[in-house]
Amino acid sequence: MKKSIGAKTLVYPAPVLIVGTYDSEKKPNVMAVAWGGICCSQPPCVAVSLRKATYSYGNIVNRQAFTVSIASEAQVKEVDYFGIASGRTENKFGKTGLTPVDSELVDAPYIAEFPLVLECRVLHTVEIGLHTEFIGEILDIKADEAVLRADGLPDMEKVKPIAYEPVNLRYFRIGSYLAKAHSVGREI
Amino acid sequence: MKKSIGAKTLVYPAPVLIVGTYDSEKKPNVMAVAWGGICCSQPPCVAVSLRKATYSYGNIVNRQAFTVSIASEAQVKEVDYFGIASGRTENKFGKTGLTPVDSELVDAPYIAEFPLVLECRVLHTVEIGLHTEFIGEILDIKADEAVLRADGLPDMEKVKPIAYEPVNLRYFRIGSYLAKAHSVGREI
Repeated sequence: MKKSIGAKTLVYPAPVLIVGTYDSEKKPNVMAVAWGGICCSQPPCVAVSLRKATYSYGNIVNRQAFTVSIASEAQVKEVDYFGIASGRTENKFGKTGLTPVDSELVDAPYIAEFPLVLECRVLHTVEIGLHTEFIGEILDIKADEAVLRADGLPDMEKVKPIAYEPVNLRYFRIGSYLAKAHSVGREI
Repeated sequence: MKKSIGAKTLVYPAPVLIVGTYDSEKKPNVMAVAWGGICCSQPPCVAVSLRKATYSYGNIVNRQAFTVSIASEAQVKEVDYFGIASGRTENKFGKTGLTPVDSELVDAPYIAEFPLVLECRVLHTVEIGLHTEFIGEILDIKADEAVLRADGLPDMEKVKPIAYEPVNLRYFRIGSYLAKAHSVGREI
């Protein structure tokens, strides 16, 4: 018997997506977004949802572009700061000492020190409620060589991304290997 | 210096969302979806993206409702099977021995044995490309008492959800606690 806990925004695990944008004066900004994820395979797209009140919201509307940097667990302090502070009043790159890199593909910056970066142009803007969802086509992914496997694909065990627990507000590490996808289910 | 790896559908970690639907004869079906996540806080909404070719796609279009069951790591075989098999040719509940429960709030079933369930009605349907994104308003969440904390909220360490690694097709456990969100960033 299950217990009703009400209508909460709760999916486990949630990702930690660091959204990079330029403001009207091309000052680079980043914010932490947990509401989002891949939303289409062809064209490859990622969705990120932002409140209109955020500084990044206006940046995306004006530039129609954003990046998504994926942090490693050692960068959790910076990630959390990106979710607390506003680019309207703070220079988040200056404060953390991280380096903005100008994407050559889209009108947005990404974080040099983060292991994995998606470069996106806005395909759809969906007004939902408190949050607006931006669906970005992924034009390219850039990865640190240190996180690549022999076949050239990024290894989640090397990226060491952060898993977010909404509602309870906690960050977790990714744990051990569990099973091979598109495979283990054939045993049933 | 980062290396370009091309436009891939890659965000770490991706969730494993088990989408429950009824077909036209009210046969319950479930499928595994990794493209999705929370997309709005108010109203609370979750997005799931499905290919039109899936059996579940037609079910959601017809019923305008779905559930999302979150599995525990011990259920990884069933989860993977739900992603491999099609409800068009197989009775996935019968084959796995899992129990469909009729949601009292929406026209869709959920899985009794999975620890956490979201009950959703479709608010928006976004045609993106190969995938269609269904944005569902979360009307309620049901949780097993065994995964609740003393304050009544579900504990991710008790739920033990599965993290999915796209492209490389692997499932991982959630690991150890890393830091407190909306807090650790204040040290910067």
